[in-house]
Amino acid sequence: MPELSLPDTIAMLRRTPVTLNALLRDLPDTWTLGNEGAGTWSAFDVVGHLIHGERTNWMPRVKLILEFGDARPFESFDRSGHEQAIAGKSLPELLDVFARARMDNLDALSALNLHPADLNRRGRHSVFGVVTLSQLLATWAAHDLTHLHQISRVMANQYRAAVGPWSAYLGVLQCDGHSS
Amino acid sequence: MPELSLPDTIAMLRRTPVTLNALLRDLPDTWTLGNEGAGTWSAFDVVGHLIHGERTNWMPRVKLILEFGDARPFESFDRSGHEQAIAGKSLPELLDVFARARMDNLDALSALNLHPADLNRRGRHSVFGVVTLSQLLATWAAHDLTHLHQISRVMANQYRAAVGPWSAYLGVLQCDGHSS
Repeated sequence: MPELSLPDTIAMLRRTPVTLNALLRDLPDTWTLGNEGAGTWSAFDVVGHLIHGERTNWMPRVKLILEFGDARPFESFDRSGHEQAIAGKSLPELLDVFARARMDNLDALSALNLHPADLNRRGRHSVFGVVTLSQLLATWAAHDLTHLHQISRVMANQYRAAVGPWSAYLGVLQCDGHSS
Repeated sequence: MPELSLPDTIAMLRRTPVTLNALLRDLPDTWTLGNEGAGTWSAFDVVGHLIHGERTNWMPRVKLILEFGDARPFESFDRSGHEQAIAGKSLPELLDVFARARMDNLDALSALNLHPADLNRRGRHSVFGVVTLSQLLATWAAHDLTHLHQISRVMANQYRAAVGPWSAYLGVLQCDGHSS
């Protein structure tokens, strides 16, 4: 079992709202509302998805592990749940909501006062079976990165034609969307 | 020829230094110095590469197009040129150097007072042949995004083992490194 550094994980989780704020707030719509075609997500949609995860996925699962261990499986995560989060909202509003939700969740995580041994506590994923609290927390951080990866790809896609022959040299334009 | 919005392009170019600053400054070394194996780049290395591009690639090519058109090919870009930029530097220093270099370059770009028709001016790439100023500027912005894409992938790689079975669901961990 790889040992997880809780401080390193929390340090990463703290960066995502400020990073997305620096990248996206008040950026022209070309960048923030463009997607990769019908049924795909824009940067705006991704921020909504991150909000939905803060509300229904990460901390609820942490609490389920601490309370019920692997006796009760996690609720499944609704990948279209962001639609409710984004309805009628502007991007600056979503960025604010995400930042607040993340801060509240990190405060709640800190209040649990987890000890290293707690990281080995077991939960139950409906597909994977037994997982650990450590794996859940690592996934929370890596999930942020998968969506930063996606946002950079979706944004680059808006300039796919504009770069002309340079598209051959831009790796992000070769990415096949495995991170959506 | 797709029409490029110069303001949209500049808006994106302005975001990269603040985004990388928000993501990386004072983040634990696990995230900033980890790479994807021997001969690959860490987030730290990527910032060095971006500095090198500011110094030797983008604005020098813009100026070459305006001065010589397609009569003189661009200098080739040295992909190991960042080694000199990073030697003996800390990450906060590199972030400062990048932010300053980018700001100076955007000031210089603005001082050129480009008109829409200028975007069609032609330059010569040693491999692609004739390219336009528009394509060069679009590539400058998309190149930032290719490296944000890379940084998020390299960082996620540090938690490849820690996420356990969730690696199957994290697209960034399926990315084959086309963006390095």
